Amino acid sequence: MPEIAIILGSDSDLPKIKDCFSILEEFGVSFDITISSAHRTPESTREWASSARDRGVMVIIAAAGGAAHLPGVVASHTTLPVLGVPIETNIAGGLDSVLSIIQMPSGIPVAAMPAGKAGGSNAALFAVSILSVSNPDYAMKLKKYREKMAAGIGVKNEKLKSLGHAEYIKKLGEGK
Amino acid sequence: MPEIAIILGSDSDLPKIKDCFSILEEFGVSFDITISSAHRTPESTREWASSARDRGVMVIIAAAGGAAHLPGVVASHTTLPVLGVPIETNIAGGLDSVLSIIQMPSGIPVAAMPAGKAGGSNAALFAVSILSVSNPDYAMKLKKYREKMAAGIGVKNEKLKSLGHAEYIKKLGEGK
Amino acid sequence: MPEIAIILGSDSDLPKIKDCFSILEEFGVSFDITISSAHRTPESTREWASSARDRGVMVIIAAAGGAAHLPGVVASHTTLPVLGVPIETNIAGGLDSVLSIIQMPSGIPVAAMPAGKAGGSNAALFAVSILSVSNPDYAMKLKKYREKMAAGIGVKNEKLKSLGHAEYIKKLGEGK
Amino acid sequence: MPEIAIILGSDSDLPKIKDCFSILEEFGVSFDITISSAHRTPESTREWASSARDRGVMVIIAAAGGAAHLPGVVASHTTLPVLGVPIETNIAGGLDSVLSIIQMPSGIPVAAMPAGKAGGSNAALFAVSILSVSNPDYAMKLKKYREKMAAGIGVKNEKLKSLGHAEYIKKLGEGK
Amino acid sequence: MPEIAIILGSDSDLPKIKDCFSILEEFGVSFDITISSAHRTPESTREWASSARDRGVMVIIAAAGGAAHLPGVVASHTTLPVLGVPIETNIAGGLDSVLSIIQMPSGIPVAAMPAGKAGGSNAALFAVSILSVSNPDYAMKLKKYREKMAAGIGVKNEKLKSLGHAEYIKKLGEGK
Amino acid sequence: MPEIAIILGSDSDLPKIKDCFSILEEFGVSFDITISSAHRTPESTREWASSARDRGVMVIIAAAGGAAHLPGVVASHTTLPVLGVPIETNIAGGLDSVLSIIQMPSGIPVAAMPAGKAGGSNAALFAVSILSVSNPDYAMKLKKYREKMAAGIGVKNEKLKSLGHAEYIKKLGEGK
Amino acid sequence: MPEIAIILGSDSDLPKIKDCFSILEEFGVSFDITISSAHRTPESTREWASSARDRGVMVIIAAAGGAAHLPGVVASHTTLPVLGVPIETNIAGGLDSVLSIIQMPSGIPVAAMPAGKAGGSNAALFAVSILSVSNPDYAMKLKKYREKMAAGIGVKNEKLKSLGHAEYIKKLGEGK
Amino acid sequence: MPEIAIILGSDSDLPKIKDCFSILEEFGVSFDITISSAHRTPESTREWASSARDRGVMVIIAAAGGAAHLPGVVASHTTLPVLGVPIETNIAGGLDSVLSIIQMPSGIPVAAMPAGKAGGSNAALFAVSILSVSNPDYAMKLKKYREKMAAGIGVKNEKLKSLGHAEYIKKLGEGK
Repeated sequence: MPEIAIILGSDSDLPKIKDCFSILEEFGVSFDITISSAHRTPESTREWASSARDRGVMVIIAAAGGAAHLPGVVASHTTLPVLGVPIETNIAGGLDSVLSIIQMPSGIPVAAMPAGKAGGSNAALFAVSILSVSNPDYAMKLKKYREKMAAGIGVKNEKLKSLGHAEYIKKLGEGK
Repeated sequence: MPEIAIILGSDSDLPKIKDCFSILEEFGVSFDITISSAHRTPESTREWASSARDRGVMVIIAAAGGAAHLPGVVASHTTLPVLGVPIETNIAGGLDSVLSIIQMPSGIPVAAMPAGKAGGSNAALFAVSILSVSNPDYAMKLKKYREKMAAGIGVKNEKLKSLGHAEYIKKLGEGK
Repeated sequence: MPEIAIILGSDSDLPKIKDCFSILEEFGVSFDITISSAHRTPESTREWASSARDRGVMVIIAAAGGAAHLPGVVASHTTLPVLGVPIETNIAGGLDSVLSIIQMPSGIPVAAMPAGKAGGSNAALFAVSILSVSNPDYAMKLKKYREKMAAGIGVKNEKLKSLGHAEYIKKLGEGK
Repeated sequence: MPEIAIILGSDSDLPKIKDCFSILEEFGVSFDITISSAHRTPESTREWASSARDRGVMVIIAAAGGAAHLPGVVASHTTLPVLGVPIETNIAGGLDSVLSIIQMPSGIPVAAMPAGKAGGSNAALFAVSILSVSNPDYAMKLKKYREKMAAGIGVKNEKLKSLGHAEYIKKLGEGK
Repeated sequence: MPEIAIILGSDSDLPKIKDCFSILEEFGVSFDITISSAHRTPESTREWASSARDRGVMVIIAAAGGAAHLPGVVASHTTLPVLGVPIETNIAGGLDSVLSIIQMPSGIPVAAMPAGKAGGSNAALFAVSILSVSNPDYAMKLKKYREKMAAGIGVKNEKLKSLGHAEYIKKLGEGK
Repeated sequence: MPEIAIILGSDSDLPKIKDCFSILEEFGVSFDITISSAHRTPESTREWASSARDRGVMVIIAAAGGAAHLPGVVASHTTLPVLGVPIETNIAGGLDSVLSIIQMPSGIPVAAMPAGKAGGSNAALFAVSILSVSNPDYAMKLKKYREKMAAGIGVKNEKLKSLGHAEYIKKLGEGK
Repeated sequence: MPEIAIILGSDSDLPKIKDCFSILEEFGVSFDITISSAHRTPESTREWASSARDRGVMVIIAAAGGAAHLPGVVASHTTLPVLGVPIETNIAGGLDSVLSIIQMPSGIPVAAMPAGKAGGSNAALFAVSILSVSNPDYAMKLKKYREKMAAGIGVKNEKLKSLGHAEYIKKLGEGK
Repeated sequence: MPEIAIILGSDSDLPKIKDCFSILEEFGVSFDITISSAHRTPESTREWASSARDRGVMVIIAAAGGAAHLPGVVASHTTLPVLGVPIETNIAGGLDSVLSIIQMPSGIPVAAMPAGKAGGSNAALFAVSILSVSNPDYAMKLKKYREKMAAGIGVKNEKLKSLGHAEYIKKLGEGK
């Protein structure tokens, strides 16, 4: 019985949100992953979504690209919180996925996450923040995660001060 | 048993595509109209779409605004031709509806019609052109419709020539 | 101790999300409203956000227009779920608000709601769906809300069938 | 006498819609391909389009990029259904082709297909759906095509479940 | 035998470019106006365009909205200079007309004029500048037109200096 | 000898940035206003800009709409700080003015201010912040301006708390 | 004394419009090329532009990227026809250059050419079409150029028919 | 006590604005660089910004990508001039960063610099122009910088004239 259920419109989206998986694992959140398309497998998407609350799922993460209907279609079959992750496309600079996810009609909410690199990680973190509402353990873990993030930036500043910007940029380039 | 089945995401979309109804009536095409939302009434939308071919429907016209998922959701439940009409919104200059309808994933086609005034009329005319593939009567009617359109422009040119542009513009303004 | 805390960048945004207030009242959710700008009152915004969890707040709704930084700034000071509502502007078709809210960097999630009419109502409903994760009462109420919504569409279809589209459109116009 | 006639504005568009050809072949639909530009060879485009119905053509597929006028110009010379496929460009994120095809004026409909990878395949499938209106054999084949598509996703889910996401992503990368 | 031939896709575009007519009259340039649609009357558009040079026309001005194909279609039938004027629409902030006119393929040039108020006047002035290449009289008139424009701004500055900004703004408002 | 020199491409832009004038007056900054177009009066624009530093001007504010070249052209003739204010247009949602001002080439900087209502006021405040670098009096006045702004929001919150949101919204509406 | 004068904002734009040079050479049109920036060398740009007509120049081609002011600035100093070529950028999908060139204010026209590959060639061809107004030799050459273009497409069609699409696409790939 | 303080949302932005550092060094302006995120390290960002004037800082340069809140957040804590540099992203063609920085609300100004290559250099040059208001030495240096820039273009023109365009383009390619 996973706390978070993840659904993707295509297996090619898996690597694009892999930060989502690693962050959930880092927080010790249970989750499962299903590939199911709003359009190509509407029946299994519907069954998956409409039974999610009864399966004990607490939050749903749905990722899709193009005319990204998946988060909305999932939300139409459940009253659980649904987080929509737009997968970047080349058309209109990715606005197709972003607008298809954010502009849901009144009555059926979807929470839109960022397009691009931050989509997977922020979906994971937002899901944990929802769990933290009734689970103080997750609230504590989120607080520590942020402190670690801030500390990491502190370390970079010290390195920048000691190396100087020219050297730092050179090392960044090599690090790639 | 209508030849064309029309579905709208909201009754407020009815006046925006009313040219669709008048053109279908002008061509003598039978049609019915249903209000059903991809998100608010997913079950009735699914039943409506998946039974359409058995009800004798030949072409589906689906109109929706915002993150306009309705045409895509309908197409996921039928292999009939589905024409999607984007209803204009204020966000991103209406690009939300346009991109949500046109950018369907590979495998589940939707035919996108224009946003704005031409959406309803062109959906009706495109539906008739589909019927005309196997019905020479409709092919004949389409040909006549175009001839009438062209003749109308000819009349305007004669009027413009006799009135002059200043007078013509003045009459246009009064005509509104 | 309200379950939901709402923050707006300007009092002129109040009427634009009033559906948010009426839906929360309909669900019996406790909430309070504060006007505080990310830029004009950064100190009070920070204090408000960083103390929210200790005040017993469970979900935050933040609405702002233009370069809508408020939801992100609030999220930088709390690990509670923050829902961002873009208030429509005229520039770039409102893309400024939408993109400023949705494109948060990795690590600090904000859940973007729709721009336009559905922003306020969906923020309220999404907030309730978060509460429903640990409160079955709200899950039940959400289910009923959706059934009522679907039933309302059923009534409209019956009316449309009995009146016909021409008469229905005429009555819609008069209703306005 | 092909059932489908395909026209491209440039031979460089051929590889971009090659899925169109393979799907039509898979369905056993007869088709021919012509390169003809709306602007560079207007006379041959006009003759090709205006004689299409008499040649027995049932559906036209027209692909073009930039200010993609070809589908509209073809539609101005025939009342057959014309499917327009926008070829991606770099300008305005490809919006030039998308908007040039979708925003046809009232009276001369064009059915806009997706920009990008799905353009060719969906044009083929939509053309078959039009043929299926009067040909139950194609309706049956479309149904099977969708079942195969859905089954393929089922296989991927089983593989994902047995491999786990980390291993699956690794194999995806190698598969490329 | 007019020096300039103007073609419009619809008579509703007449008032939107009326500055074009008044400027041509002010310069004493002969012109005629024809309403003809790229899509609704392709034959008469073709005949009109392909015979233009033989009729003595020197420059063509073509105005159209939406998927504004008219300037491009006209240019495909003549090697005369064709100026395209995008008529503003509501979709994508008028980008549909702008991009449909400017993004012509290599080989068939169209000169795009501004969308909005300046479209008509600048088309007229650009047409005159083309005539001025071989007609020094028009070159002289253009020079005077610019001097008058500059002088008009000088007068406004004097008025602004004597009135002060508050009073000037007040008078501007009354002037409307 | 004004500290700030303001230049506008058209007198119709005067009312759109009038907040600029009132804020400068409130801060006791001396300024003058000139109407001069980058394109219609290039000579006087050039003279105005190239002599500005010698006239004792410290900061330039340049407002223009459409292909808003004025701020860039002014900046090409002076090394004083130039603030560019985009005047809203209807084309592309005002992106024409915004992008024409912000995307200056390397070497000739212009500081872009917001399009819309905040353009005039922020140009004034940014100009004062530049003066404040060498004038502690302006630094003090800016600090007080911000405190007043913050205090104003505090008053609104108290009113909101005492009236309740329904009553507050009602009074807002009446206030208009 | 060149017939056409070409000006570029940067030498890095030279390769992007090289089709312009080769087409002018093919037509036997005399031309010269100058690098001069609207912002970095405003004085030499002004002198170059304001003396162009006296130097015998008949048409000006101005290419620039980003906030592409060069064509407009040149047009402000001459009444010759100015063709503006937007050089593609990465920002806003190149809309910055396109809109900066096309949205000139009333009174100072610039003829916008396509962004991307067709910009250089169409500027050359449009310039020749202007020359053709008073030079029948160029009119004849333009006619032949179009016939050659059309014939080239005919050859491709024959090759496509004899090879089949699969083989043709394969050869296209190898040709690159 | 640096004259200019630079803040970046991420160390990955360092190489993207490195022209900023080299230009400041060329002008002999003192500066320091800090990495601090508006969202990940809000406390240190606030302290850094609110103490900047007391540390003797005269101008702040803030660079950030995505929903680029950093310049606005910094501006909310200081009345010093803040220059915002949008770091390019892939979403919406970089419009997310551009609009998040330019569309600041009335009262808290930020000066938006170009997205892309010119962002870093123009931020440096604009900062120097602010310093030049009270420091004639910098005014002199800016004047010389521009003269050098103009002279560089003169050299290129001579080279172009002596080599011819074909050879020049060939050498450009080799130079890369």
